[in-house]
Amino acid sequence: MASNTEEASPGSPTIGLAEEMAMEPSTCVAAEEPELPAAAPPAEPLPPTARRTRVVVLGSGWGAVSFIKNLDPQAFGERGPYELVVVSPRNYMLYTPLLPSAVGGVVSENSIVESIRKIVGDKGTYYEARVADINPATRTLTCVKEYCEVCAARKHSGHTEADHTFTLAYDIVLCSVGAVNATFGIPGVPEHCWFLKSMEDASRLRRHISKAVEHAALPDTTPEQRKKLLSFVVVGGGPTGVETAAELYDLLAEDVARSLPQIKASCSADDVSITLVDGMDSLLGSFHKEIQTYAGEVFHHHGIKLRLGTKVTAVHEGHISVQLKDGSLDTVPYGTAIWATGIAMHPLVAQLQARLPAAVQTSRRGLLVDPHLRVLGSQGTIFCLGDAAVTGAAPQAALPPTAQVARQEGEYLAALLSKNRLALREDADVDADPVGEELVPLPPRAKPFRYTHLGALAYLGEQKGVMDLPVKTPFLKTLRGYLGAQAWRTLETFMQISPRTRWLVMHDWMRASLFGRNVSDI
Amino acid sequence: MASNTEEASPGSPTIGLAEEMAMEPSTCVAAEEPELPAAAPPAEPLPPTARRTRVVVLGSGWGAVSFIKNLDPQAFGERGPYELVVVSPRNYMLYTPLLPSAVGGVVSENSIVESIRKIVGDKGTYYEARVADINPATRTLTCVKEYCEVCAARKHSGHTEADHTFTLAYDIVLCSVGAVNATFGIPGVPEHCWFLKSMEDASRLRRHISKAVEHAALPDTTPEQRKKLLSFVVVGGGPTGVETAAELYDLLAEDVARSLPQIKASCSADDVSITLVDGMDSLLGSFHKEIQTYAGEVFHHHGIKLRLGTKVTAVHEGHISVQLKDGSLDTVPYGTAIWATGIAMHPLVAQLQARLPAAVQTSRRGLLVDPHLRVLGSQGTIFCLGDAAVTGAAPQAALPPTAQVARQEGEYLAALLSKNRLALREDADVDADPVGEELVPLPPRAKPFRYTHLGALAYLGEQKGVMDLPVKTPFLKTLRGYLGAQAWRTLETFMQISPRTRWLVMHDWMRASLFGRNVSDI
Repeated sequence: MASNTEEASPGSPTIGLAEEMAMEPSTCVAAEEPELPAAAPPAEPLPPTARRTRVVVLGSGWGAVSFIKNLDPQAFGERGPYELVVVSPRNYMLYTPLLPSAVGGVVSENSIVESIRKIVGDKGTYYEARVADINPATRTLTCVKEYCEVCAARKHSGHTEADHTFTLAYDIVLCSVGAVNATFGIPGVPEHCWFLKSMEDASRLRRHISKAVEHAALPDTTPEQRKKLLSFVVVGGGPTGVETAAELYDLLAEDVARSLPQIKASCSADDVSITLVDGMDSLLGSFHKEIQTYAGEVFHHHGIKLRLGTKVTAVHEGHISVQLKDGSLDTVPYGTAIWATGIAMHPLVAQLQARLPAAVQTSRRGLLVDPHLRVLGSQGTIFCLGDAAVTGAAPQAALPPTAQVARQEGEYLAALLSKNRLALREDADVDADPVGEELVPLPPRAKPFRYTHLGALAYLGEQKGVMDLPVKTPFLKTLRGYLGAQAWRTLETFMQISPRTRWLVMHDWMRASLFGRNVSDI
Repeated sequence: MASNTEEASPGSPTIGLAEEMAMEPSTCVAAEEPELPAAAPPAEPLPPTARRTRVVVLGSGWGAVSFIKNLDPQAFGERGPYELVVVSPRNYMLYTPLLPSAVGGVVSENSIVESIRKIVGDKGTYYEARVADINPATRTLTCVKEYCEVCAARKHSGHTEADHTFTLAYDIVLCSVGAVNATFGIPGVPEHCWFLKSMEDASRLRRHISKAVEHAALPDTTPEQRKKLLSFVVVGGGPTGVETAAELYDLLAEDVARSLPQIKASCSADDVSITLVDGMDSLLGSFHKEIQTYAGEVFHHHGIKLRLGTKVTAVHEGHISVQLKDGSLDTVPYGTAIWATGIAMHPLVAQLQARLPAAVQTSRRGLLVDPHLRVLGSQGTIFCLGDAAVTGAAPQAALPPTAQVARQEGEYLAALLSKNRLALREDADVDADPVGEELVPLPPRAKPFRYTHLGALAYLGEQKGVMDLPVKTPFLKTLRGYLGAQAWRTLETFMQISPRTRWLVMHDWMRASLFGRNVSDI
């Protein structure tokens, strides 16, 4: 434990394991002078067997929440063998599959988030911070308390002090930080495109669309300006891109048309246009062939223009440069361009890779894990799941970066830890050169992770949806149309995070069908 | 009509009345070159009797919405004598009395707004713009299409062009622009205080409180820092201030205490404090004496510190300078200071006053109106209602700036216009010097506006509320406690804008009691 303080930057107190254990709940902070923070004195480590194994979960997304929810409350309760700490810059779990519906104003922001504190409950502690560094050598995390943008923007006093860090010791880390948007180095994407990854992205985009429609309806808007304001281009033909185009279609064709008769909101009309661009030759590439064809037909019927086999080479103000399959160049004009494709490695993952043996961490997509989801080269102290993990070394091929995979990995790890009492080897701190040796041994009977595909769903607009069934019989391979939309709606409701969000999402759908979508620019 | 174009700034097209009438709905824009906008050619005015009276409503708050909702759809339909245009920078009506509840996370943002387009419906046209100038001489409005902050902040293309203006002609204007926050020239208020007037204010404050609680819970937060983060000061002892303190109390005592056991969320504990500051000697000055005493007792029981008879003289980073009744000076420390007192004149009202005869517009609070709510000196062409109007010249004393007053004024004016066919005098444009003469004559039998006080309500926290009854019997003058809270809840639900918001607010209360408040920082 004494080595922790060597790595901690000066002035950032280290919260040691033993130290924190000895504190009362109401005083579990490093008691220092506010003006002159000093590093906490190095704590005398308790013998490992006498203390609880501290499991630190990084993130509050699908993997993290699935893990926390499935933990045995006995094992992670006050008297259990584990101590749980969750660190994430977002104090809520976001039900990402419904982000396109939030953009369309069908579901409320509030309905698809759940407080991470409620999810953690009595099982552990939550800290709102970003982890900037994982140090496997000292088994410490450098956490950054994020600058409060709200305060800063308004020059309000309160918690406006600049970023500052604190250090957290761990025995086991669960890295579930996800991924970030990928722009593939295409110039102009960050400047001109809207993303759809966070709640903030969705709220901003919804307000922007509302504003664009309002500006289109002003009396001095010229037909050319109006056409530009109401032309939406979605880049990406995967589920996110397809559902965003579908929700946009519903919003424009139903609600905007109703309240703005002077705008011909049918997509085949001149004023409004929705275009979907993708480099592949069909929509929903990961779905059954039948569904791909069907989705194309539905979009054609909606009047959504499909530019498939079309690669984006650059995004400029007002138009996108593209290259077709035959090598010819073209441009796609837009008023609003939405980037709904591709994910890239989270910065923390890149940082951790640099600290691990280069010979084992060779993937540019994420952290390579073993069949038990342990990060290669971490001596069993770091587990990784979700979009941050690359399961290439597992008995199965690399799994796709979907919510479903993260969810099952979280369940698997929760069972692994709950059933087996994982702990740091007693000689862990004595061992001077433990490369290759396991510091957190797994019981030999521990089963590897196995993924079970449960099918895939997508919403296509106008009460039509598709579902790829997990079990393909000769008679029924897919669900399509109204039945597909109902399957999508039912599953998106029942897969929700909590009874609260389950109820709220159901209620939102009812509300939208009774009262229409939210088209106010709040 | 020809005179309109003289006033319009070069390049900002004037949408003349006759001109627009002659257009198809789908082409009701000034058809010009997008690159070189030129003023529309002066339109030949139709004889006034042959055309509809254009009524332009400014605003989308209580007064405007009450007016629009109560208009006779026949009179304001396509074949009626009136043409309705609504201009407001906000495309929704906000149910302001529930803003404190939105801060507390009890009701959702979405539940207390209603689309102004839905309210206007078939009765007229809505334009999202700010009115920068009312010119009674030419009967034209200068409208400013607002810069899109969302786009600008993210450097997204779309509608990022700078503010530009268009001109709108009118026969009658209904000025319902409300008021703005008053800081009474006290230094430090704009820099350090949070306001509570718009939806954006409420959302920002809710996120800020969530952040403050999260930062207070971090492991390296010192007890001093924590105390500061969790000290809230509300300035203002009127209904807004009292309800904000009450909702803060509920949020901290119930939800935050539940999810953050290490914070003793009772206000009597050391860590959390709520203080209410007001220059008056009691809370809820406009309420019955009995209620004032009761509210003080309830707040005392909650542990909310009351600093009454205490005038704010300056707000500094971290503390407020105050002066007590006896002249002595003191300071009140804070982490978050909320300014919930006072309103000041809207800039548009000041601008209009400058254009009207100084001899008749003498109030610094707003536009003086006659008993029919016509702005003095406007020759009957401008009506004013809500917080922007001063009813000093009316048979009653000046009315308070409340939602209830604005609502009744809107109803009154809707009936006045719907029942009488108000129109510009035929010789209005011929008359060269019409000062003092009515351009829009009222029928002699038109009754003046009369306000009926329907009582007043306030929520005090912990399921306690108060209601000042409109009719005071010897036995029952007020409702207090649980009954008062139920009266408040019932009335706030049934006074809602639409069946949609009525349902959503009811549902939000049910949700909050079942699942708790929204404590995520989205």
